[in-house]
Amino acid sequence: MISDTVFAAELAWPDYQRRVQGGAVPILIPLGSMEQHGHHMPMHVDVLLPTEFARRAASEIGALVAPPFTYGYKSQQKSGGGNFFPGTTSLDGVSLINALKDVVKEFARHGIRNICIVNGHFENSWFIVEGIDLALRELKWSGINDVKVVVLSYWDFVDQASIEKIYPDGFLGWDIEHGGVLETSLMLLLHPNLVSLQNAVEHAPATFPPYDVYPSKPEWTPASGTLSSPKEATAEKGEILLEVCTRGIVAALRKEFNFEGDVVAAE
Amino acid sequence: MISDTVFAAELAWPDYQRRVQGGAVPILIPLGSMEQHGHHMPMHVDVLLPTEFARRAASEIGALVAPPFTYGYKSQQKSGGGNFFPGTTSLDGVSLINALKDVVKEFARHGIRNICIVNGHFENSWFIVEGIDLALRELKWSGINDVKVVVLSYWDFVDQASIEKIYPDGFLGWDIEHGGVLETSLMLLLHPNLVSLQNAVEHAPATFPPYDVYPSKPEWTPASGTLSSPKEATAEKGEILLEVCTRGIVAALRKEFNFEGDVVAAE
Amino acid sequence: MISDTVFAAELAWPDYQRRVQGGAVPILIPLGSMEQHGHHMPMHVDVLLPTEFARRAASEIGALVAPPFTYGYKSQQKSGGGNFFPGTTSLDGVSLINALKDVVKEFARHGIRNICIVNGHFENSWFIVEGIDLALRELKWSGINDVKVVVLSYWDFVDQASIEKIYPDGFLGWDIEHGGVLETSLMLLLHPNLVSLQNAVEHAPATFPPYDVYPSKPEWTPASGTLSSPKEATAEKGEILLEVCTRGIVAALRKEFNFEGDVVAAE
Amino acid sequence: MISDTVFAAELAWPDYQRRVQGGAVPILIPLGSMEQHGHHMPMHVDVLLPTEFARRAASEIGALVAPPFTYGYKSQQKSGGGNFFPGTTSLDGVSLINALKDVVKEFARHGIRNICIVNGHFENSWFIVEGIDLALRELKWSGINDVKVVVLSYWDFVDQASIEKIYPDGFLGWDIEHGGVLETSLMLLLHPNLVSLQNAVEHAPATFPPYDVYPSKPEWTPASGTLSSPKEATAEKGEILLEVCTRGIVAALRKEFNFEGDVVAAE
Amino acid sequence: MISDTVFAAELAWPDYQRRVQGGAVPILIPLGSMEQHGHHMPMHVDVLLPTEFARRAASEIGALVAPPFTYGYKSQQKSGGGNFFPGTTSLDGVSLINALKDVVKEFARHGIRNICIVNGHFENSWFIVEGIDLALRELKWSGINDVKVVVLSYWDFVDQASIEKIYPDGFLGWDIEHGGVLETSLMLLLHPNLVSLQNAVEHAPATFPPYDVYPSKPEWTPASGTLSSPKEATAEKGEILLEVCTRGIVAALRKEFNFEGDVVAAE
Amino acid sequence: MISDTVFAAELAWPDYQRRVQGGAVPILIPLGSMEQHGHHMPMHVDVLLPTEFARRAASEIGALVAPPFTYGYKSQQKSGGGNFFPGTTSLDGVSLINALKDVVKEFARHGIRNICIVNGHFENSWFIVEGIDLALRELKWSGINDVKVVVLSYWDFVDQASIEKIYPDGFLGWDIEHGGVLETSLMLLLHPNLVSLQNAVEHAPATFPPYDVYPSKPEWTPASGTLSSPKEATAEKGEILLEVCTRGIVAALRKEFNFEGDVVAAE
Repeated sequence: MISDTVFAAELAWPDYQRRVQGGAVPILIPLGSMEQHGHHMPMHVDVLLPTEFARRAASEIGALVAPPFTYGYKSQQKSGGGNFFPGTTSLDGVSLINALKDVVKEFARHGIRNICIVNGHFENSWFIVEGIDLALRELKWSGINDVKVVVLSYWDFVDQASIEKIYPDGFLGWDIEHGGVLETSLMLLLHPNLVSLQNAVEHAPATFPPYDVYPSKPEWTPASGTLSSPKEATAEKGEILLEVCTRGIVAALRKEFNFEGDVVAAE
Repeated sequence: MISDTVFAAELAWPDYQRRVQGGAVPILIPLGSMEQHGHHMPMHVDVLLPTEFARRAASEIGALVAPPFTYGYKSQQKSGGGNFFPGTTSLDGVSLINALKDVVKEFARHGIRNICIVNGHFENSWFIVEGIDLALRELKWSGINDVKVVVLSYWDFVDQASIEKIYPDGFLGWDIEHGGVLETSLMLLLHPNLVSLQNAVEHAPATFPPYDVYPSKPEWTPASGTLSSPKEATAEKGEILLEVCTRGIVAALRKEFNFEGDVVAAE
Repeated sequence: MISDTVFAAELAWPDYQRRVQGGAVPILIPLGSMEQHGHHMPMHVDVLLPTEFARRAASEIGALVAPPFTYGYKSQQKSGGGNFFPGTTSLDGVSLINALKDVVKEFARHGIRNICIVNGHFENSWFIVEGIDLALRELKWSGINDVKVVVLSYWDFVDQASIEKIYPDGFLGWDIEHGGVLETSLMLLLHPNLVSLQNAVEHAPATFPPYDVYPSKPEWTPASGTLSSPKEATAEKGEILLEVCTRGIVAALRKEFNFEGDVVAAE
Repeated sequence: MISDTVFAAELAWPDYQRRVQGGAVPILIPLGSMEQHGHHMPMHVDVLLPTEFARRAASEIGALVAPPFTYGYKSQQKSGGGNFFPGTTSLDGVSLINALKDVVKEFARHGIRNICIVNGHFENSWFIVEGIDLALRELKWSGINDVKVVVLSYWDFVDQASIEKIYPDGFLGWDIEHGGVLETSLMLLLHPNLVSLQNAVEHAPATFPPYDVYPSKPEWTPASGTLSSPKEATAEKGEILLEVCTRGIVAALRKEFNFEGDVVAAE
Repeated sequence: MISDTVFAAELAWPDYQRRVQGGAVPILIPLGSMEQHGHHMPMHVDVLLPTEFARRAASEIGALVAPPFTYGYKSQQKSGGGNFFPGTTSLDGVSLINALKDVVKEFARHGIRNICIVNGHFENSWFIVEGIDLALRELKWSGINDVKVVVLSYWDFVDQASIEKIYPDGFLGWDIEHGGVLETSLMLLLHPNLVSLQNAVEHAPATFPPYDVYPSKPEWTPASGTLSSPKEATAEKGEILLEVCTRGIVAALRKEFNFEGDVVAAE
Repeated sequence: MISDTVFAAELAWPDYQRRVQGGAVPILIPLGSMEQHGHHMPMHVDVLLPTEFARRAASEIGALVAPPFTYGYKSQQKSGGGNFFPGTTSLDGVSLINALKDVVKEFARHGIRNICIVNGHFENSWFIVEGIDLALRELKWSGINDVKVVVLSYWDFVDQASIEKIYPDGFLGWDIEHGGVLETSLMLLLHPNLVSLQNAVEHAPATFPPYDVYPSKPEWTPASGTLSSPKEATAEKGEILLEVCTRGIVAALRKEFNFEGDVVAAE
């Protein structure tokens, strides 16, 4: 039995209880999706990546990682290709809001006071905010006023220097990074056996008008499902991304959760 | 990239599409929980076990396995010890109903017509029925009338002969098998590194009055969180259970999903 | 005007107020259904029987009986024949959860602290738990922490000795007692004018595979709608059942609601 | 067994099926409440009276009566005294909407096409409309477009001639008839054993300003809970009311449900 | 910038904060609809009129006016002609309940303790009550117990003397005033450029049976959409109505919100 | 009466019906909020601006403008300062989703097939998507498959050339334009009497870490409530913005709604 794991669900409850009592130890909840990521990557990229970032950050600061959310909100055309692809399997907004609300409240019931949502699927952002707001409201009704929730998407920690290394020909924005160099590089590093770069479809970056249309217009999305070509992805770029994002997440959590080096050492 | 995997989310979408088109290939959805399972087992037993049963059954009949539900309904005192243990992390009924409803409808949108819920957490049963009923209702409104859903809990396939081998001193019912010989034997076989049998607490089988009380009465549950002693668990018993349940599940799916040997062979 | 009635809704409000103030007097809420019960019994068996058990138990311990829930959750194939029969009239899960939540909270607002759900329809069980959990949660938000709810189904109080008398040829489980000897015997005793035993259809006990299928498969249910033959039902067996269940319910409520004989006498 | 009953739930399902097939036979659903009705009447007046009107109307036109809704919407100060009285036990709006929606849809599933809501509790009106609107919307999604629902409150059928007989000193409006001459006269006629006219409190008719205030102001409601004095109630007045309302309801249903005398006779 | 406006949303937040702090200043929330009002009036009569009443009352007592609700509950046949007219654009009950609940809670969060709903659309009444009840319940959970909400519809303040002046040939009830003399006279006075009295259709007052039918029967509503003829409407009658209703509303708010003349003067 | 207005609610229903029949005429729905916009602007900026853009676009292409949504989703710290300011008055996510769903469905019921959401409040975006998705789903259930919805936020149409003119010292992103040069310039042009530029607080652009924290941290938001200084705002810049955004919106709608110049001329 792995008693030194960071994965909360791998612990027996008495070990979990020892870890969370006092409320100082944070828990990180990865939120993903089952969403097409082109011809060259599997559909649970958005689960695998935030789970790995959560694992690394938790290891560094002595936190726990909760079981990931394996389904997320509906893929949007300009950030994920659209929800019409076979395989993309999504929740209604209210389903995601409620499930996240419930889980946040349960961890607070256990005594945890520092919670971090590690998002791997852009479209979830919209409903994470509401799930947390409702959870904090109900926790207040229960007399619990000291829960703090950090919400982050790992790509937001990529800095300018890294962008220049990863996109030497210019960076066109995170929007069209769906199935592109960012995710593919990380997957090549972390889960190379799940990537088939040779299947990747090369195409010009997707461009969209400054508005959305519903029902989605499949002709707007490149037929591959990716929004920019992943051909320039490499495991080396994955290293850069992994390093800068992990470092950023760790720093953010240390700051917001008032970690001292000693506290972490003592874990 | 693993194109021969049974795990749907490990596929790229074009591979998934090829597999599901025509509607004959079933998808199996494991439903678990994050729930305490005593001092000797981790809290995601109810995810690990149905996922493994689903994987085995899917391999045999050429089906797919969907990402598991990692959180489930509230642990009940007489079947799971109760929801008051630290670590047990549960959803409200309506959250589970809605999330399952959404996912069933999405797989139907992809063209899948044969769906199996492989449940690993007794308390989910109550809300799986409603989630499916609502999904089928809405699918009908969308003109889809030919989706068939099989719901099963793997332990229901243990036959009398196996029970006699596994419980030579008599069987007291599945209710109190929470964290007991059944689950522990399977975990010893399948995930031995996640079990610490030496930490298991020996105690007489839990007994309960013929009614329930809310709020739960912690004094009714053995302090360990298990409802019967797992001490007699062995990997060998796990083999018996694995074999009989897998065989039963496979037979059920073949029958309900009209599989011919040839169809499966052709997969 | 019947001021000594146990039926709360037969009281004028000042009488009700006198009875409930202080919070010691329990209220029993019968939960039934409108569900087919074969060719020989009416569709409100699941309302009539728990109401009568509630009435008898309330009389003995000085409790009140609330108006029954006349509709319940969807009939399931393996316990009630299935929801496809004409006449069976059911609620969605969330409707039942919410209505029960509301009513429990209202009785708590009146000052009642001991509530018992007397269930007569197996399928309700699934949603009673959630309705109570939500009610207790919201009551806590209102600062009310001392409400206790006992949930029971009357048939769970039949003991082994009674079973042997009632089923001399062997007992096959409560599941298939839908419209069978249990319910029919009680109805023959309590509401003989509503039973036509001559219309009962004799058939072998229903058998089901160890899984469920949705949509329901009508061919699994005996055409009569009952799951076992009621032909051996008698009013005498009804007497045995009535006595053992009433006695069990009374004992349970005395125990859980901390009744002393004197308290009851003083009512 | 009463095969000639108008109460649908007293029928065995094959009898029910025979009655409803073809869709011509209407079903009447009584909607009541558990609500204080002063010192002289029990709290289920609003269930008893519409059930009796439904029974009489159904008998005349060959219709069925469904099980009553035993709980209703929150009592309002200007029509029912307010929801703060002990004993008054109410549902949230959405609970009532959903439960009624479910039941209407179920009767339509059985083949019934003519449904009448017989309301006995003014405050329900607000949510009956929405429950029916949602039911008809969902039935349309299911391809059922020919369900017709009549909604009525029995008191709306009292004509001017009857009012003059019943209120010789002048009529002040149905609003303040809560627990007054109307309901009390009907109860004296139909359920005299449930009325204690000697306990009735005499007081001037309640008067209210032309607006509402929340939270309710208990001082606005006469302390008795009634809004006008029931002292002038008599069983004879009950006869007048029963006759005129029953006649009106029957005529309305015949007209809306296209009944010919022959059809009814043929029942 | 208009710092002396009564319209809260025309204020900058620091000005708003100054006005509401202490909680004494009331806020009035106009609730309207987008609903047909015959051939001679626009579809936002039910927004314009309560907003104007709110503006006038707020000016007199030193209150604020919140942004109006521009959509309301479904038009009913006997009070608004029915929801089948093109142009009538309505909310489901639960949508209106929830939106109003949210807004009431937000104003309470700002410190406001005196809230008035100024309703201009009869059908909203049904859901205003529930929205307020839920808001007050949740505010209590948040520890806020001193919010008072007055609910009024402006026409309820027309007194007998005014009725006699406005309807010299007899008054037939507010029900059929939809698009009739009341609303048209007020619009002629306040928004003459939005009224085309020459387009008004003259017809006898609508009469309805003492029950409702769903789906609505368009043949019950006069083809014009109005329920009584607006031909006798004049701006002078509008003056009478404006004066008597404003006076009544002001008096009600002064009384319920404990205004002293001095307090108002000091505003 | 203004029969040539673009505001749908200013029309009488027969005029509205003439306009919408055939389905070609689009309707534009402005979605705003009541949200603080600093010391120098009122709280309904997000209603006024999209309504004006909608009015102009509708005038050019012969479309209609629906009544605006006057309340929106909760202000977020990094785009609107946060929801903790007095005056900011917001809806829960599900309330906004449902209200928008209802309104979209109603316009479709009237025969409209081209709908445009003109958003003025960034935070709404998150829930507009879901409201539309649910509306289109339910419309499909009703057999209506040809409704097209364009969603746009006016600021997304500002092109690079305009940005350079408006922000000669560099543009820092739309995020921090809350109450800044963009909105203030437009308000100075369109509603100068509602702006007090002298009250505007000058401060450096707000900077935020690459993550969010809940509950919000008021110290992150400049005390003024604006996220960048509006001091450089001018009516001339407002002209540039008004022109480029209107032009862009008009082009987008012509394209998506298949407008030919002739069609518009023919209106």
